[in-house]
Amino acid sequence: MNAKSENIYLDYAATTPLDSQVAETMIGFYRDETAFGNASSIHSIGRSARAVLDDSRDVVASLIGADYSELYFTGSGTEADNLALTGTMQAAPKGKNQLITTAIEHHAVLHTAHFLEKQGFEVTILPVDAEGMIRLEELEDALSERTALVSIMHANNEIGTIQPIVEAAKMAKAVGAKFHTDAVQTVGLLDVSVEELGCDLLSLCAHKIYGPKGAGALYIRSGTKVSPLIHGGTQEREKRAGTENVPALAGFGKAAQLTKDRREADAIRLTELRDKFIEMLMARVPGLRLN
Amino acid sequence: MNAKSENIYLDYAATTPLDSQVAETMIGFYRDETAFGNASSIHSIGRSARAVLDDSRDVVASLIGADYSELYFTGSGTEADNLALTGTMQAAPKGKNQLITTAIEHHAVLHTAHFLEKQGFEVTILPVDAEGMIRLEELEDALSERTALVSIMHANNEIGTIQPIVEAAKMAKAVGAKFHTDAVQTVGLLDVSVEELGCDLLSLCAHKIYGPKGAGALYIRSGTKVSPLIHGGTQEREKRAGTENVPALAGFGKAAQLTKDRREADAIRLTELRDKFIEMLMARVPGLRLN
Repeated sequence: MNAKSENIYLDYAATTPLDSQVAETMIGFYRDETAFGNASSIHSIGRSARAVLDDSRDVVASLIGADYSELYFTGSGTEADNLALTGTMQAAPKGKNQLITTAIEHHAVLHTAHFLEKQGFEVTILPVDAEGMIRLEELEDALSERTALVSIMHANNEIGTIQPIVEAAKMAKAVGAKFHTDAVQTVGLLDVSVEELGCDLLSLCAHKIYGPKGAGALYIRSGTKVSPLIHGGTQEREKRAGTENVPALAGFGKAAQLTKDRREADAIRLTELRDKFIEMLMARVPGLRLN
Repeated sequence: MNAKSENIYLDYAATTPLDSQVAETMIGFYRDETAFGNASSIHSIGRSARAVLDDSRDVVASLIGADYSELYFTGSGTEADNLALTGTMQAAPKGKNQLITTAIEHHAVLHTAHFLEKQGFEVTILPVDAEGMIRLEELEDALSERTALVSIMHANNEIGTIQPIVEAAKMAKAVGAKFHTDAVQTVGLLDVSVEELGCDLLSLCAHKIYGPKGAGALYIRSGTKVSPLIHGGTQEREKRAGTENVPALAGFGKAAQLTKDRREADAIRLTELRDKFIEMLMARVPGLRLN
């Protein structure tokens, strides 16, 4: 349509552009001298940084239907996946030594699984069919009392197949295993609810929902034991040490809020479209009844 | 002096405020639509993000007298410490199972040491004297052919004691152990040179040199084997997976450049002060000779 030479960015599965409102939120923090405090310090600057983190945690948690207290910030979606797998396997009770995952996972899960295998854990990689779907019978066969964790991606980032998470999570629960899903690719596109999915752990990240790089999160259902991956200070309730990146996490919160708003607007728009469609049908087709 | 109520920030050991030039560098990236590319993607936006990372890596490396190829970015100083300890112990040759560190380390080192002990490694914690100094005789006694790594902080963040790193690193080398120092607190204050110190690994972070949170680095001397802590993509030459945080790493580079400039200006200022002092003495004290 336009002969002018320009770059058109099409690689949205790798990263999304930063939303301008998210950028301005972050820029506010970078420019506000009072925002530089260490969120774990006790003085007032530290306290206001803490309040920002709390607000972000609240909105990101609500995006996946989780409670505030079950959301832990990380430095990336990859780190969230690593924390889920390595942290759960290291914290698993004696005798629970097996991790089950699939051939179609993101490298953050697959390479961590290979690492855990080298560390002495039993790792089972389920194959997928021609559509990229796991077969629940194969998961059933692989599960045992030894299974500590099952990790199945919500949707693959290359072919888009949505896995049967609800059923798989129930099967894991039946043998006392925890269930993790990598929802990094889906949180921006689909309604994701940890209650509906029934998962114990769920990874997400900011820069796939028009937020900044350097911010991810792991949902950890209350009562699920996970050892930290990064040891040190008491940040993130001792699950992830390191001074909190307040501007990036504020940007994550803003991106989550915009994603929620967009989803709600989409829901209203779709409801209106449906109502309009019904109205048109009713007017034009005599004797039609709405079932 | 001033009765007006205002906050004066004194907790510079926990974090330093963001330099306004660093903030503007980062803001440029957040606002520039062409800067949002995934640095590992092959299209042109990805390539320009890669060039920014390369420039930052170069200047941060030069701040500690290291080569570009020996610097690996992390999400924090804490993560750099974890990578140094856990990564080196996991990659150590058979028979080298011992980590030696000190009672005065940052929690990022001490808590990681405790974690490694639980994982089955032998961990020796050296005590310190009343001035917070380690005793080299005690290090000598603890070292053996089994020692894989010695980790001693460059200077403690509470009492400021500078440890005898050069001697300790030589002693570690003599038994074939690697040597790590946490220089997070010192890089902004002292000239730090990995060649002069003789260390194999050195941790630093951006937000202690007026840079942003969310950016740290580990120097890994060429030939030193370190397993990744975060598995997944091939970022940071397979030492630290996760999409690169380009704006934060550009900010780290800017902060490192400003630190280098400040150090050089300080060196010139101190030389001028010394010369002026000598000149004044020579003029006022008859018969004085400069030795």
